[in-house]
Amino acid sequence: MDTHTPDAADVSPSEPEEETPWLSAREQRMWRAHLEVAKLLDYQLGRELQPHSLAINDYEILVVLSEAPERRMRMTDLATATLQSKSRLSHQITRMETAGLVLRQECPGDRRGLYAHLTEHGWATMQKVAPDHVRSVRAHFIDRFTPEQLDAMYEALAPVAEHLRGLRGRA
Amino acid sequence: MDTHTPDAADVSPSEPEEETPWLSAREQRMWRAHLEVAKLLDYQLGRELQPHSLAINDYEILVVLSEAPERRMRMTDLATATLQSKSRLSHQITRMETAGLVLRQECPGDRRGLYAHLTEHGWATMQKVAPDHVRSVRAHFIDRFTPEQLDAMYEALAPVAEHLRGLRGRA
Repeated sequence: MDTHTPDAADVSPSEPEEETPWLSAREQRMWRAHLEVAKLLDYQLGRELQPHSLAINDYEILVVLSEAPERRMRMTDLATATLQSKSRLSHQITRMETAGLVLRQECPGDRRGLYAHLTEHGWATMQKVAPDHVRSVRAHFIDRFTPEQLDAMYEALAPVAEHLRGLRGRA
Repeated sequence: MDTHTPDAADVSPSEPEEETPWLSAREQRMWRAHLEVAKLLDYQLGRELQPHSLAINDYEILVVLSEAPERRMRMTDLATATLQSKSRLSHQITRMETAGLVLRQECPGDRRGLYAHLTEHGWATMQKVAPDHVRSVRAHFIDRFTPEQLDAMYEALAPVAEHLRGLRGRA
């Protein structure tokens, strides 16, 4: 992750002509703060879902499926929506199927598609967990910013998200 | 991940007296932008490390070890530094050992400690990869903010990182 200036002797031999654009101290501290918050927040929100026997990725799947028409999605679309590889998603869905949260089914009349459905138990679980989760998100993130900071960060992050979505779409 | 107001009928039955503090639309859009950037950036930086046959977590290990005294760390400290569980780190270090990037050794005179050492090959790999990685970080993140945005985001994020580090330390 580190991107600061290394010793002068460390200049990459493969880039003799083009100087490496190392981050300045101000850029570096922001980059590290972003990485740390992203990682630690993920960890903390995951910890606070543990009493519900849910991993943070499981919760995300419940949310995405609950918002989909008929509370189901084609596995390939679900992988795209949750930014996971198909194989990793498949493992996760297997675990969640065992827990009774989702059901994998072929769609009649659509031979290409294997769908993940949210079960009634999955829906009920999400309803039960959501209030605790939003309290966690507030306590460890949202409520720690002023309204001005929230808006400024949104303005800064939204174009970056769009840029990255575009790259992902072309992948 | 979703934390917006659900249908009125969705009020959690387990919290009949305390209203759930759902996120407002402004809070919600910032929360989603943060999640998306964190996840997509991780994905994109990982993709751009692939030509070097490194996962993003591998690169992080190389950086942390390269900054440690004698380029080595006790496995437990490395797990803390990289915010990973010991078992997950152990799997990762096994893979990296196979690739010749690190070496696991007991420390003479310290029977408690198993250490991960950066090998010469690991050090050389980091030196070779770092210039490309910093270009990726700039292209997809840092250079997309104005200096004012960088400073404002650092000011906003740093106290959150500190809060989360404190929670993690107590875990």
